[in-house]
Amino acid sequence: DQTLLPREERWVTIRSPEDMIREIRRLAVRGAPLIGVAAALSLAAYRGTEWRKKAAMLREARPTAVNLMNAIDRMVEGGERRAEETAQALFDEDVMLCRRMAERGAALVNDGDHILTHCNTGGLATVGVGTALGVIRMAHEQGKRIHVWVDETRPLLQGARLTAWELARLGIPHTLICDSMAAFLMARGKVDRVFVGADRIARNGDIANKIGTYGLAVCARHHGIPFHVVAPETTRDSGCATGRDIPIEERDPEEVRMGRAPQGVKAWNPAFDVTPRSLITSIILDHEDTL
Amino acid sequence: DQTLLPREERWVTIRSPEDMIREIRRLAVRGAPLIGVAAALSLAAYRGTEWRKKAAMLREARPTAVNLMNAIDRMVEGGERRAEETAQALFDEDVMLCRRMAERGAALVNDGDHILTHCNTGGLATVGVGTALGVIRMAHEQGKRIHVWVDETRPLLQGARLTAWELARLGIPHTLICDSMAAFLMARGKVDRVFVGADRIARNGDIANKIGTYGLAVCARHHGIPFHVVAPETTRDSGCATGRDIPIEERDPEEVRMGRAPQGVKAWNPAFDVTPRSLITSIILDHEDTL
Repeated sequence: DQTLLPREERWVTIRSPEDMIREIRRLAVRGAPLIGVAAALSLAAYRGTEWRKKAAMLREARPTAVNLMNAIDRMVEGGERRAEETAQALFDEDVMLCRRMAERGAALVNDGDHILTHCNTGGLATVGVGTALGVIRMAHEQGKRIHVWVDETRPLLQGARLTAWELARLGIPHTLICDSMAAFLMARGKVDRVFVGADRIARNGDIANKIGTYGLAVCARHHGIPFHVVAPETTRDSGCATGRDIPIEERDPEEVRMGRAPQGVKAWNPAFDVTPRSLITSIILDHEDTL
Repeated sequence: DQTLLPREERWVTIRSPEDMIREIRRLAVRGAPLIGVAAALSLAAYRGTEWRKKAAMLREARPTAVNLMNAIDRMVEGGERRAEETAQALFDEDVMLCRRMAERGAALVNDGDHILTHCNTGGLATVGVGTALGVIRMAHEQGKRIHVWVDETRPLLQGARLTAWELARLGIPHTLICDSMAAFLMARGKVDRVFVGADRIARNGDIANKIGTYGLAVCARHHGIPFHVVAPETTRDSGCATGRDIPIEERDPEEVRMGRAPQGVKAWNPAFDVTPRSLITSIILDHEDTL
């Protein structure tokens, strides 16, 4: 249950696709690659007469990360009879995709780099080592002396709660900041590059990612700082021509109000934003394809 | 006690300059113009033999907003004997400065504008109607149909707690957002102009203001959105040539961790950042002087 980290490590037993949908919606299970694999596993474990209906329900648990739709589509293509096999393949594949992205991305990291990242894109967001955070981990394991600026990532603080927790466990030096501090760090010359993940990549290379990513990309461009997106093939959506076609989930305004704002104040809470390809230095996939 | 708003309206009785310093440091009294006047009032009420020493202590209660230093310097110039008179003059003057800024700034607001603002710059931050929020209030009172996007303003949520509270009392339509959502709003064409305050204006027109202001200015420029700074003459510092000369207060990292991050995680907590004059469309002072 990722909503309880870092205070408590509690595991949730999933007994049905409905259980999984609930846990995905409340972000106990989160991260674009992970929700795809987790949904597939819960479908593989389903024993009943409504397999295709459950598949359709799981596919709609959340609207933005296309990994979920891609994983369920793979399950449906494979068919109910081979469901466990397909789910296991998706599981194993994610581990491999993460490793490949990590290797490709780590090659861009220099010894001494200060890297800024947003949201959580590590072991908690994938089955493997992660996307953007997998790159950071690999660079660290290669012996590069790096330091990570961790955006807290309002409203749900995946950076402050999850990324800081992962980095501490990995022994990678890091400093937490509020999202609004990143631009000032850049102005002071304290950010060498930015690595973020993605929840969906359109055909033209525009990406959707956690809210706040777009502003970071604008600021990185203003300061001439390389801005890298790290995501596997399973995050691509050939059905979206551009970022404008990506549906953006809007969540409960109370996540923004946090019990601190006046009761009933109107709040806007998009969970993602769209960054155009033109602001992205490189999209690091799991293979050589360029985007 | 502004730390308790909007949940509770509690007034604090100040019995000494030390009381005032404590309340200023913990942000029970905050806002660049207000802390200047409040410090002056507490000095005027002081009865004892260490008037100049208390003045020097008050002057250093917080380091970034120069209104505090300017107000105490005016008190010291006026001398102990005329302290009440000088403090009252500073009080009355702030009301007048706010009204003039509001009139000058409101002229820039169009009917139907969506205005984005950061931190709190209203009646809670000044003795009068405010700086940036005073402009917004005046435009509303002039009958212009406006809507305000309120940046929550991490880490201490002056936007979510104080600006939303003031706007609700004034009956001005508003929507709360996380700081990281502003860029996405701009990309969607939903921000017509930005108004913010300032804590210090250098000779070259660079400004220090609440952390997050600089990133907003970068994003506003990227989208071609007018970015206005509203501040009175008392916020100018002829002793600072550029923004680089402005001391930036760094506060307790726990304000960033908020009890949600792993215990003991390193955090950086600058209370202000610096926006260069080149990113500011106009600085709206209380008089015709251009900057």
